[in-house]
Amino acid sequence: MALPILGYAAQSPTTALAPHQFQRRDPRPDDVVIDILYCGVCHTDIHQARNEWHGSVYPMVPGHEIIGRVSAVGAKVSKFKLGDMVGVGCMVDSCQHCAACEAGLEPYCVEGPTWTYNGTDRHDGQPTYGGYSERIVVSDKFVVSVSDKLDPKAAAPLLCAGITTWSPLRHWNIGKGSKVAVVGLGGLGHMGLKFAKAMGAEVTLFTRSPGKEAEARKLGADHVVLSTDAAQMAAVARQFDFILDTVPSQHDLNPYLNTLTLNGVLCLVGLLEAIEPPVQAAMVVLGRRSISGSAIGGIAETQEMLDFCAEHGIVSDIEMIAIQDINQAYERVLKSDVKYRFVIDMASLKQTA
Amino acid sequence: MALPILGYAAQSPTTALAPHQFQRRDPRPDDVVIDILYCGVCHTDIHQARNEWHGSVYPMVPGHEIIGRVSAVGAKVSKFKLGDMVGVGCMVDSCQHCAACEAGLEPYCVEGPTWTYNGTDRHDGQPTYGGYSERIVVSDKFVVSVSDKLDPKAAAPLLCAGITTWSPLRHWNIGKGSKVAVVGLGGLGHMGLKFAKAMGAEVTLFTRSPGKEAEARKLGADHVVLSTDAAQMAAVARQFDFILDTVPSQHDLNPYLNTLTLNGVLCLVGLLEAIEPPVQAAMVVLGRRSISGSAIGGIAETQEMLDFCAEHGIVSDIEMIAIQDINQAYERVLKSDVKYRFVIDMASLKQTA
Repeated sequence: MALPILGYAAQSPTTALAPHQFQRRDPRPDDVVIDILYCGVCHTDIHQARNEWHGSVYPMVPGHEIIGRVSAVGAKVSKFKLGDMVGVGCMVDSCQHCAACEAGLEPYCVEGPTWTYNGTDRHDGQPTYGGYSERIVVSDKFVVSVSDKLDPKAAAPLLCAGITTWSPLRHWNIGKGSKVAVVGLGGLGHMGLKFAKAMGAEVTLFTRSPGKEAEARKLGADHVVLSTDAAQMAAVARQFDFILDTVPSQHDLNPYLNTLTLNGVLCLVGLLEAIEPPVQAAMVVLGRRSISGSAIGGIAETQEMLDFCAEHGIVSDIEMIAIQDINQAYERVLKSDVKYRFVIDMASLKQTA
Repeated sequence: MALPILGYAAQSPTTALAPHQFQRRDPRPDDVVIDILYCGVCHTDIHQARNEWHGSVYPMVPGHEIIGRVSAVGAKVSKFKLGDMVGVGCMVDSCQHCAACEAGLEPYCVEGPTWTYNGTDRHDGQPTYGGYSERIVVSDKFVVSVSDKLDPKAAAPLLCAGITTWSPLRHWNIGKGSKVAVVGLGGLGHMGLKFAKAMGAEVTLFTRSPGKEAEARKLGADHVVLSTDAAQMAAVARQFDFILDTVPSQHDLNPYLNTLTLNGVLCLVGLLEAIEPPVQAAMVVLGRRSISGSAIGGIAETQEMLDFCAEHGIVSDIEMIAIQDINQAYERVLKSDVKYRFVIDMASLKQTA
């Protein structure tokens, strides 16, 4: 007896998102049933709804920045109980036995993790549906606890934008004494500034827009460098230990590489396409620099991040919308017209029903 | 009273190397005067003699894989004495006070090191001339000791091809349990195989030439993968912790990146040009892999490498030539027709005089 669920779905790459009724599985012994309160709007939702990465399956219910309350648990679930505030991010399962999974790095699962939407459940073969819906059913291993110290609305984007920037900053041991630069000030970039600052680093924002200085400083930037200004770029040559590059579209990495110290690392978290224009090999060879990348983050480190956020009072800067506004919100995301993340108030779904 | 010296020089980008008389400075208090016995022939010599990297200054005396005997020392030199067998590599000086120099990583000197040839002495402003000559005068800080356990002829290439492969293998902590692949089997590649094997790694050679298997195994390869064979490449997906890429010309990195494990590193040591065709960002992001690079190595680690070689009986595989054969040798280097490094017997210079 599967649960009937109301959500918003794309029926094809070119149709607007609209109300859609579908079913969730009956809870398995390790499942947590979550009544969704809030869901962040990630650029990935747009890519997937519009089949821009190919492989989209319809109907598609997007959403992987999910916050809600536990409304039921399977027989074997001891970690969560009714009424708990919890979160679900980009993944709802993985193989659980490869080296990456055993290291708590499920995004790198050799079999590939099960994505929260546009995925296929590895047990029953059914499609997965995301957080633009009233309820979700997820294995307890992929559910994280959300402290009551956190505003649950503003915590939603931590499940993707947060962990995607947290994980590389932790992996590359950013802390007191580190000189970190963040490229791009969007959903990911603004979290990168907050985290790097809270970790104790000296933080610089690279931006192409002159008007962002005051706001960047409020978010944690100690310095702002206009990347279109050659003199400003020359002044920071060989300065940074670590660059967190959040830009999701093709851009020239060479000017940024030139600002890395010996052994410095530029880490891509937004780009999945070809690196063009090409990187000059001399930029890495002559400074023993690295171009690396990082994908989301593991479940254990997602919990660690949420706990850090609760302790340090960190959440995302958000703009609340009703689910009925989702299509306009997508257009605004594409124009970078949001500070810095839209979050859907899922109570608005009731107006649809 | 500067010393008159006989060597071989290029007088322009298009003239063959020919006998050339020039002067070396009088030894300064920290200088070591070295009678050159052997000098390796590096591909860089050809690039520079022909002005392929631009900035060549003529007359140019190439050569930066130098082995010889100390024939005089300045008043303040205590580390070397007459008759010592010593080596000089790609650098003869650096600023000595930047963070890189203080860390013993002189190739990354922020002011730039003084190159052994086609450089400018930082004290007297005179051009530097390399090892295709009877004698060289070098600050003791840039001279290394060569154990009498090493065949001095076959030790010459250690000063460039050796340290260029040694340094990254050490920096990335290659040892027992590491799975290392080497791309390309030339002067650098053959040293990479020997070092990685001696450090305890499981070693694979990537090659585009089917005939190299037996020889690669003799040099230390446990496995040989034909990089033009898609099935062989697929079979080693996600296998290697570290890839030492010695190829000096543009090539597609994507198939190699795909063979790196989570957190794996591909390190460029041969390429300085644009990385084309472009790397797919997904190749690094989805495996937290890195594209890095490394330039030669520091003086302290050059000494460490030579001591390791003496202990483990490692030298380069060489083909001896007379200096009069240098122009034909260049043509053969360009055809990769050498196993694996030409070394000039500098005694042959006397036939010129």
